[in-house]
Amino acid sequence: MDNTVKKKVVVAYSGGLDTSYCVVYLKECGYEVHAVTVNTGGFSIDEIESSRQNALKMGADSFSEINSKQDFYDNCLRYFIAGNVLRNQTYPLSVSAERVFQAKAIAEYARQIDATHIAHGSTGAGNDQIRFDLVFRVLCPEMEIITPIRDQQLSRDDEINYLKANGVNLDWAKAQYSVNKGLWGTSVGGKETLGSWEYLPEEAWPTTVSKTTPEEIVIEFEAGHPVSINEKRFDNAVQLIEALHVRAAPYGIGRGIHVGDTIIGIKGRVGFEAPAPMILLQAHRDLEKHVLTKQQLQLKEQLGVTYGQLVHEGFMLEPAARDIEAFLASTQGRVSGKVRVRLMPYNAVVLGIESKFDLMSSPVAAYGETHSGWSGDEARSFGKLTSTQLKTFYSVGPKNEKH
Amino acid sequence: MDNTVKKKVVVAYSGGLDTSYCVVYLKECGYEVHAVTVNTGGFSIDEIESSRQNALKMGADSFSEINSKQDFYDNCLRYFIAGNVLRNQTYPLSVSAERVFQAKAIAEYARQIDATHIAHGSTGAGNDQIRFDLVFRVLCPEMEIITPIRDQQLSRDDEINYLKANGVNLDWAKAQYSVNKGLWGTSVGGKETLGSWEYLPEEAWPTTVSKTTPEEIVIEFEAGHPVSINEKRFDNAVQLIEALHVRAAPYGIGRGIHVGDTIIGIKGRVGFEAPAPMILLQAHRDLEKHVLTKQQLQLKEQLGVTYGQLVHEGFMLEPAARDIEAFLASTQGRVSGKVRVRLMPYNAVVLGIESKFDLMSSPVAAYGETHSGWSGDEARSFGKLTSTQLKTFYSVGPKNEKH
Amino acid sequence: MDNTVKKKVVVAYSGGLDTSYCVVYLKECGYEVHAVTVNTGGFSIDEIESSRQNALKMGADSFSEINSKQDFYDNCLRYFIAGNVLRNQTYPLSVSAERVFQAKAIAEYARQIDATHIAHGSTGAGNDQIRFDLVFRVLCPEMEIITPIRDQQLSRDDEINYLKANGVNLDWAKAQYSVNKGLWGTSVGGKETLGSWEYLPEEAWPTTVSKTTPEEIVIEFEAGHPVSINEKRFDNAVQLIEALHVRAAPYGIGRGIHVGDTIIGIKGRVGFEAPAPMILLQAHRDLEKHVLTKQQLQLKEQLGVTYGQLVHEGFMLEPAARDIEAFLASTQGRVSGKVRVRLMPYNAVVLGIESKFDLMSSPVAAYGETHSGWSGDEARSFGKLTSTQLKTFYSVGPKNEKH
Amino acid sequence: MDNTVKKKVVVAYSGGLDTSYCVVYLKECGYEVHAVTVNTGGFSIDEIESSRQNALKMGADSFSEINSKQDFYDNCLRYFIAGNVLRNQTYPLSVSAERVFQAKAIAEYARQIDATHIAHGSTGAGNDQIRFDLVFRVLCPEMEIITPIRDQQLSRDDEINYLKANGVNLDWAKAQYSVNKGLWGTSVGGKETLGSWEYLPEEAWPTTVSKTTPEEIVIEFEAGHPVSINEKRFDNAVQLIEALHVRAAPYGIGRGIHVGDTIIGIKGRVGFEAPAPMILLQAHRDLEKHVLTKQQLQLKEQLGVTYGQLVHEGFMLEPAARDIEAFLASTQGRVSGKVRVRLMPYNAVVLGIESKFDLMSSPVAAYGETHSGWSGDEARSFGKLTSTQLKTFYSVGPKNEKH
Repeated sequence: MDNTVKKKVVVAYSGGLDTSYCVVYLKECGYEVHAVTVNTGGFSIDEIESSRQNALKMGADSFSEINSKQDFYDNCLRYFIAGNVLRNQTYPLSVSAERVFQAKAIAEYARQIDATHIAHGSTGAGNDQIRFDLVFRVLCPEMEIITPIRDQQLSRDDEINYLKANGVNLDWAKAQYSVNKGLWGTSVGGKETLGSWEYLPEEAWPTTVSKTTPEEIVIEFEAGHPVSINEKRFDNAVQLIEALHVRAAPYGIGRGIHVGDTIIGIKGRVGFEAPAPMILLQAHRDLEKHVLTKQQLQLKEQLGVTYGQLVHEGFMLEPAARDIEAFLASTQGRVSGKVRVRLMPYNAVVLGIESKFDLMSSPVAAYGETHSGWSGDEARSFGKLTSTQLKTFYSVGPKNEKH
Repeated sequence: MDNTVKKKVVVAYSGGLDTSYCVVYLKECGYEVHAVTVNTGGFSIDEIESSRQNALKMGADSFSEINSKQDFYDNCLRYFIAGNVLRNQTYPLSVSAERVFQAKAIAEYARQIDATHIAHGSTGAGNDQIRFDLVFRVLCPEMEIITPIRDQQLSRDDEINYLKANGVNLDWAKAQYSVNKGLWGTSVGGKETLGSWEYLPEEAWPTTVSKTTPEEIVIEFEAGHPVSINEKRFDNAVQLIEALHVRAAPYGIGRGIHVGDTIIGIKGRVGFEAPAPMILLQAHRDLEKHVLTKQQLQLKEQLGVTYGQLVHEGFMLEPAARDIEAFLASTQGRVSGKVRVRLMPYNAVVLGIESKFDLMSSPVAAYGETHSGWSGDEARSFGKLTSTQLKTFYSVGPKNEKH
Repeated sequence: MDNTVKKKVVVAYSGGLDTSYCVVYLKECGYEVHAVTVNTGGFSIDEIESSRQNALKMGADSFSEINSKQDFYDNCLRYFIAGNVLRNQTYPLSVSAERVFQAKAIAEYARQIDATHIAHGSTGAGNDQIRFDLVFRVLCPEMEIITPIRDQQLSRDDEINYLKANGVNLDWAKAQYSVNKGLWGTSVGGKETLGSWEYLPEEAWPTTVSKTTPEEIVIEFEAGHPVSINEKRFDNAVQLIEALHVRAAPYGIGRGIHVGDTIIGIKGRVGFEAPAPMILLQAHRDLEKHVLTKQQLQLKEQLGVTYGQLVHEGFMLEPAARDIEAFLASTQGRVSGKVRVRLMPYNAVVLGIESKFDLMSSPVAAYGETHSGWSGDEARSFGKLTSTQLKTFYSVGPKNEKH
Repeated sequence: MDNTVKKKVVVAYSGGLDTSYCVVYLKECGYEVHAVTVNTGGFSIDEIESSRQNALKMGADSFSEINSKQDFYDNCLRYFIAGNVLRNQTYPLSVSAERVFQAKAIAEYARQIDATHIAHGSTGAGNDQIRFDLVFRVLCPEMEIITPIRDQQLSRDDEINYLKANGVNLDWAKAQYSVNKGLWGTSVGGKETLGSWEYLPEEAWPTTVSKTTPEEIVIEFEAGHPVSINEKRFDNAVQLIEALHVRAAPYGIGRGIHVGDTIIGIKGRVGFEAPAPMILLQAHRDLEKHVLTKQQLQLKEQLGVTYGQLVHEGFMLEPAARDIEAFLASTQGRVSGKVRVRLMPYNAVVLGIESKFDLMSSPVAAYGETHSGWSGDEARSFGKLTSTQLKTFYSVGPKNEKH
């Protein structure tokens, strides 16, 4: 290697086998290696500290942690909530969205330290590689992307042997499941999820079910943001999400299996445990049904789907995502109020809401047997004029047309 | 009244207080009254028989039952399943759809017997009046629609007194809740649902929860139609739906509260118990995720919402509904296979599926760590070209643009 | 009339026969009558002056003109341009949108002067009545709406005779066509447009075609707003629109016939002459094709249609319209540049554009025979992975499936 | 080369330089070469004959023409018409759609003759390579795709020299523009279209403008298909399209420049001359406005856009395309009637329509001053109830909310 050419690489480092291999391998190749862990909710302080020590032990020239939780909420999760984003009506995009924010933070870091290369440990099979590639190519077009795992197609044993041969003797005991933890949920893949028929067994889920007595909580929203639980106000939504997770996960709430289309076009199946997202989305959506108009609800449903799709496929940098965010933000001004939720084993039920903007509370109209806002005759006229086009349509049609 | 003019009215008769009032009142007005009950799953044989006797006792010139369950499945529910139709992601449109089929059957009957008038017992507050009006105006434009309850704005006591004064002494004990039963679920309104904060108490639900031990069932679909449960094949989907209801309702599965926009524009809140629809829709949707393409799933989601909206608002006769049905039918050819579902208290979970059309079972692609279908280098190229537009976009943009 | 009860009515007054009838009639009924003309581009200074004199002569207690042109541009037309809004891909919603802004201005005026009633001269046949009603009911729910023309169903002669009997002898010569002029175009209805087969004759159009030699102009946009023509900068977009009209109308550009669905559900057919809107929309849309991403263009197309629909049907006050405006505004930041347009008889052609944000000008990619951004091999890989899902789909399908 | 292994290639052959190079080059490589020209409207009998002679002269083992015009109409153009498909409201997808049908025909031929390889002459820059790749990979997954031009990145001179060196001395005079002709229009790229500012000069267009006197024609549709012009019935729609082209092209009708997003993500600009598509789409759309309901028109607009997008990007084999076709076919039953069109220089104007299904001709409703279908009072009630939700919305909202 020509030592007149600077070769400085930033490695998106998680502390796992693949990214550890990247650190050691790139060091061996002569790079100045900077390991960076972006924390979007997946790592405790201890885990970060352990990552730091391992990274440096393995030869990294530096290790940095970037805490992106607030950024992740401010620039993504708040819109997931505003848009009630559930991919295929099922999956809160737990991990997929975090990858993009990790990639963005890594890219910004790489530019700050004038890196020449940028590396990630994704395989060539899944979505993550595309998410990292997309963000790196757009934000650091001048840097070369290095993906040793994808390029070399090594087995786990190959990687472990290589690390041992280079003096790294960590315990890489293969877990039965690949688990990805983050602020917006934890994904669990492996064994059963590789086929279509089996469900994950109880022991595969991150949190063991230990609560069986139902409890009721009240979540308060202000302009679309969750701000308190049972009258306890949180400093920020990140903390509220973390607290809600602690409370609800032992019920087994928010578990599910998502079968989705990867960016490349194959189907993938993965388990997820996401109690806080599921409860917040349900509560938020039910609140919205009371305070928004039919037209708003319809449009939000469409745009929420599109937004989730963009994020899922790594297109968080697409300017259309900014445009949808402007739309979603505009809809949230009145999404304020309290939502009662019952937590019970494997299930959360929204019981009711209270909001000063509740359209059901208006004196203009009351549903049920009375209708103070209009007379029976006015309703008849409304029905009559509403039928105009269909009446016209059938009046000119062929006699035997199916309807 | 001029007895040279024939005045022959068909009354949409349910056996309840409002439609009984209509029968007696219209008879008093000098009409020849034909009471018709359309059974879309809401009435047992005994209930029908009792309705018949009461109607005739009250002076109806005839009573007829029209069993529309199969028609309802063939021309609506199969599309609800195909389109995974849940209004606001919540409500299977249990009762709303049935009203339209009742109206259609009534209208056809009225034409057959050359009626001059057609009557329904809806109030002026809700959706049903518009649904009946719409269908009657379109299919029987030459008949006059009579709606005594809407026009006269009588209280329950007014109606009861009127009936008593005319010799009808049935027991009209006011239930605490207004319950509407049908093949696709039962709705429960009143008390708590008149406000926004309270949930229906256990005793308000039609079926008491009596099963607590989870069980697993296997539902088989053929081309989008549910055909068997646990290998037991049903003669038709109507019977399967009824059997599934019997099995699942004691778990408290499929309960919920729907807050929706009425056709007139006010918000309404109503409880519903719809175990069979909820299980079938979940099972069907998960099967589809395995056998349909991403593009199909996306389009179906949009059109399913529109279809549900049309039916909910009484526009079942809109030709666009026929067009969407053609679309939905086209998507179902491969929606065949088995779906494992766990029934548990208040919850049903899809565990897995098996289908010969499962896209996960193809040798072309495998999700997870391996990717036999392409090389790491090919994936890198895919990621590169996929980034082209965003790379271009940011290359020409202002430096400080938010992303 | 009980003179202790104040009866103060604001009449939406255009100076035509119908609204003149309203003034005289309401005065006769004992109201204090305030005639208000809202100018959204339809009236010259002379016309306003003449309206004032007539109104007062007819007994109005006051006459006011409210110039809403800038308001109309700022709160509607800028979004029509941003959203490329053409109803049914044809009609720039010339007059429909103005009605809503007229109604809003009238409603605000009525509240300012504490009116008890508010009147408009619409018939019961068309869209305008619903637009006025909607806005008045929402913004002035406490005022009663009076619509003499709709209620009394008078013929023109009836109205003229009534006016004469009350001493008003203006010349109400019946024009062959009903012409509505405004900033965003002029509509022309009558005779031919009452059927489906005939086109409006040359003499029916507001502007006679007098230019035959093509000319080229350059329109400049800044962040979605048109700001200059041929380097001449205008003080505001209203003036630019008016100047563009003067230049282009003599070519016969922007003429068309719109066949649309009225709010009530019948079809209506009307001619329109809208050269400025048609040129601006074409120019703006072509500029956007160069500077926005595919995803943005797709979403804008959908939301533009919805926005147009809301405005057309009088739902300008729907909060969803605010949300779409936020979306549209977000998309326009880069819609800056010059557009060359050729004006020729009955036609305008966009020749080309120039923008610093033109995605075609990026060095990242070049269309045509060269492709500096990627290699042939990379393109092959992209094509390969793009085919994954369909390949999978057909690999598991039945052999004889149609494709 | 191992002569025990059969190497049999089908070349998608157009007769141009690139595909001629492929024939000669692959023959040199030892393949058994079968040249196939698929005629979707781009070739005259003489051109096909000349192609045949050249292909054989260059060493092809066989030459075949496959006439796919009717297939192209039956399986694509009829849906373009039914869906009023204009990409970005501008471009009738003239050439893009044909590539897919050419690819399908080539793939089927390759399977019939048991080819081992399949070759196309696309470069690596544009859309065509992806279209061919997609179809070949899906329909002939077992065959290897060969793309010499894309792989070798040769210049025109390189190719010409190679051909000369191999004894092929045809006249490959470089045209200033790359012209692609087909049944649904001709595309013209080069020079001006490589930038954003210049328009194609008069001489660049395929047809010289020679007609200046306007004429009127009447096109008749039956169930969405164009069947006659001026009462002359055609044997099939292909012939009608060809005849309409001959009549309208000399007016310069249907010219335009399309700026679009390629599949890979760059912007491309290309001229097109497509008089028949533009006239047929305009006529068909205007007819639909008279005979379809508002709801149908709205849904068709959305799905037409999606359909165009699928075809444009080569996804004609996507099953969702079949589903949309089922939808579109369902909408066309009543799209029957006559459309009057004025042809004039650079412009076609729909003057009027006549249809037995015209919703304007119904006695139920009449637009304009009269409204026989309902009373003024009924219209007032309709307006009142229509305002319910907005009235409610503003009644509970903050006082200073913008509207």
